[in-house]
Amino acid sequence: MKQYIEQNRERFFEELFSILRIPSVSAKKEHKADMQRCAERLAELLLEAGADEAGVYPSTGNPVVFGQKITDPSLKTVLIYGHYDVQPAEPLEKWHSDPFEPVIHDGAIWGRGANDDKGQLFMHIKSFEYLVRTGKLKHNIKFMFEGEEEIGSPALPQWMKEHEDMLAADICLVSDTTMISEKVPSINCGMRGLAYLEVKVTGPDKDLHSGHYGGAVANPINVLCDMVSSLIDKDGKVTVKGFYDKVVELSDEDRAQFARAPFDLEEYKEFLDIAQVKGEKGYSTMERTGIRPCLDVCGIWGGYTGEGAKTVLPSEAHAKISMRLVPDQSSEEITRLFKEHFLSMAPEYVKVEVKAFKGGDGFLIPISSPAYKAAAKAMGEVYGIEPVPSRGGGSIPVLAEMQKILGIDPLLMGFGLERDTIHSPNESYLLSQFFAGMESIVLFYEYYQE
Amino acid sequence: MKQYIEQNRERFFEELFSILRIPSVSAKKEHKADMQRCAERLAELLLEAGADEAGVYPSTGNPVVFGQKITDPSLKTVLIYGHYDVQPAEPLEKWHSDPFEPVIHDGAIWGRGANDDKGQLFMHIKSFEYLVRTGKLKHNIKFMFEGEEEIGSPALPQWMKEHEDMLAADICLVSDTTMISEKVPSINCGMRGLAYLEVKVTGPDKDLHSGHYGGAVANPINVLCDMVSSLIDKDGKVTVKGFYDKVVELSDEDRAQFARAPFDLEEYKEFLDIAQVKGEKGYSTMERTGIRPCLDVCGIWGGYTGEGAKTVLPSEAHAKISMRLVPDQSSEEITRLFKEHFLSMAPEYVKVEVKAFKGGDGFLIPISSPAYKAAAKAMGEVYGIEPVPSRGGGSIPVLAEMQKILGIDPLLMGFGLERDTIHSPNESYLLSQFFAGMESIVLFYEYYQE
Repeated sequence: MKQYIEQNRERFFEELFSILRIPSVSAKKEHKADMQRCAERLAELLLEAGADEAGVYPSTGNPVVFGQKITDPSLKTVLIYGHYDVQPAEPLEKWHSDPFEPVIHDGAIWGRGANDDKGQLFMHIKSFEYLVRTGKLKHNIKFMFEGEEEIGSPALPQWMKEHEDMLAADICLVSDTTMISEKVPSINCGMRGLAYLEVKVTGPDKDLHSGHYGGAVANPINVLCDMVSSLIDKDGKVTVKGFYDKVVELSDEDRAQFARAPFDLEEYKEFLDIAQVKGEKGYSTMERTGIRPCLDVCGIWGGYTGEGAKTVLPSEAHAKISMRLVPDQSSEEITRLFKEHFLSMAPEYVKVEVKAFKGGDGFLIPISSPAYKAAAKAMGEVYGIEPVPSRGGGSIPVLAEMQKILGIDPLLMGFGLERDTIHSPNESYLLSQFFAGMESIVLFYEYYQE
Repeated sequence: MKQYIEQNRERFFEELFSILRIPSVSAKKEHKADMQRCAERLAELLLEAGADEAGVYPSTGNPVVFGQKITDPSLKTVLIYGHYDVQPAEPLEKWHSDPFEPVIHDGAIWGRGANDDKGQLFMHIKSFEYLVRTGKLKHNIKFMFEGEEEIGSPALPQWMKEHEDMLAADICLVSDTTMISEKVPSINCGMRGLAYLEVKVTGPDKDLHSGHYGGAVANPINVLCDMVSSLIDKDGKVTVKGFYDKVVELSDEDRAQFARAPFDLEEYKEFLDIAQVKGEKGYSTMERTGIRPCLDVCGIWGGYTGEGAKTVLPSEAHAKISMRLVPDQSSEEITRLFKEHFLSMAPEYVKVEVKAFKGGDGFLIPISSPAYKAAAKAMGEVYGIEPVPSRGGGSIPVLAEMQKILGIDPLLMGFGLERDTIHSPNESYLLSQFFAGMESIVLFYEYYQE
């Protein structure tokens, strides 16, 4: 594969850039046409790479790309999952270059989606191309790329139910996660779930002069701050009633095992430029993102946010609140508990509304499976060191649903790194990881044959 | 005057609209040229109305308009203060018509500045015109219109010092406040001061994936909410250390006097569409805005505020915080105390910055003065009922400085009403108040002669 990459390097970049240039931001309705365009381009790339068939399938949301090559029904079938939608690029002013005009410098590809997930799913198309063109393909391969992962995959479960037979496979291979570091390859064997809500606090029905009314009328921003502040107590615990009821507590032995993964707190703080970490009392930083749930405000707004000093007592204040969940917290239940909790604490002098977005459950993957072992062997060979099992703090909510609907376990071979700052300005993907990823995938197929 | 208004009505509107159409928003640098344009138009209007001289004077900030007519040095001199700058019009989507394209309907003028303060200062130009043209002028009249009232008049004190002789007068007449209601005319005999700050909380030096880091790294929005929430305690008291030290406490007798002004809590709540008022424990709604200081968040922002569900742990969170002050709180001292308080409570896992805007002190006006009595008599005649003295919750910080610099007391004959929603979308000014204001001003001159 190394030589193949060498020979086709420039073409790989050209093809990848053709999808990175499409601003397929699923969170914004204005990008509807870009979603279609991106999906069509991917189907084209699958056919060019050697798929027997590939097409753009309508769903109740953004279209799904499906393509396949059936080599021999008696061979193992691998379903590749990926997503072609990306996070919004805002704040735009923090990007060093246009988020949708990818560039290569400092040994990395820079642009929105360079890693998450266009860059990572592209590795699978090219590994597949290599196997087809060199006659080494010994599997049936199916590709399923959705366009709504970043908004919680609202349409995919239904679509999977409607195409259950077409999607039948032995394993679902996913590259949409990070490794601990270049020197410490890891395979994700668990992810957190997600609940995401937007809250709105309304005080007076119009913006008021803060001099005429200030002190006598509840200010919705102050009230929202009070309410948000009360959601986490002084020990870093989420106060939503019932939040921890279903959380699986790890045994001391499991925690000890977990603590073996290398982690340097000083490096971590330096990377983030923070003087101190903060989280739930009694847990380490790795545990706080790996095995514990949490609550974060992802956005807040209200009143005058422009230049200068406008004196206003605003009518409304808003916040977007996400909760990361662990087994066995149900996203649906936590969403309901949050709603009840937040509405119940609304003081009588304001009106409170809560709107829920699509979330998803967390999941765990057995490390004893043949697929996990094949992945570990492949990556061990490429990186020269055995990968460690890890738990990702992020969420790919639809994978838990896939387990339920299709009965297929996911295998998370992710090649992202912390430094890639996905979801943030200046997202990037290291070329060395891009190439090592393709090599690992090709080797995975070699070892995943039984 | 009634007849004169009738005869010149359309011309009055045309002239007023010519200044309302200029978006002279002092909070935004992009409107620099509009400030100059608006000042020049006002000087023109003063000359047309009968001023001996009128011009646009440079200052260290936006220009000051000054014009005068010296009838006879032995007569009383009235200095008219007003401001031609306006508040930003945002949120624009809440306006029913273009904020800078004034319209008349439902018995009112609608547009940014219709009341505050272009509409109100314009009454003085037209009252002056009437007196000049009918030969009834028995005073020396000076006009001073500034372009930075809405941002705390940073340049005017220095400009007044430099033009002290030119500005000499017996009284400063100001129409930039509200009356209790159309049926209850009132004259403002005290205003609150203002301190205004902007705070910034920085967590990690970049936006982070809320899944990878959530739970382990302090979220600056959550921290900002905690900090803001702690600024007001459960009794509605501001917790900034030393905040109440200099507050003048009213005697029971004064409070009883104050409580005589008519106020209907049910009407108030209905007007604002709120189920309950909220404020400092132990004080009435009128007291809370009249004689007590307060703290309000005027704006808050951070993280993702667009459509949909972006999962981000943001790098920064911001808030604009205003405090309304009462005698003898000093704006400068409260600004310092807030800064110290806010910085001292910053937890070690974030960085906190505080920036102060220009504020101003509150002041009181003696109701026994000849000017107050003349105003009360004039308004009593026009409204058919004796006006009550009131205390305004708002601030015109520069008037306290004028008292100090020029030794001139302000007299606040304001004709705005609550319904005008100044500083908010759909600012308006009732035609009946516009006309009654001009009649009152003309009568004021008649009674203010000794």
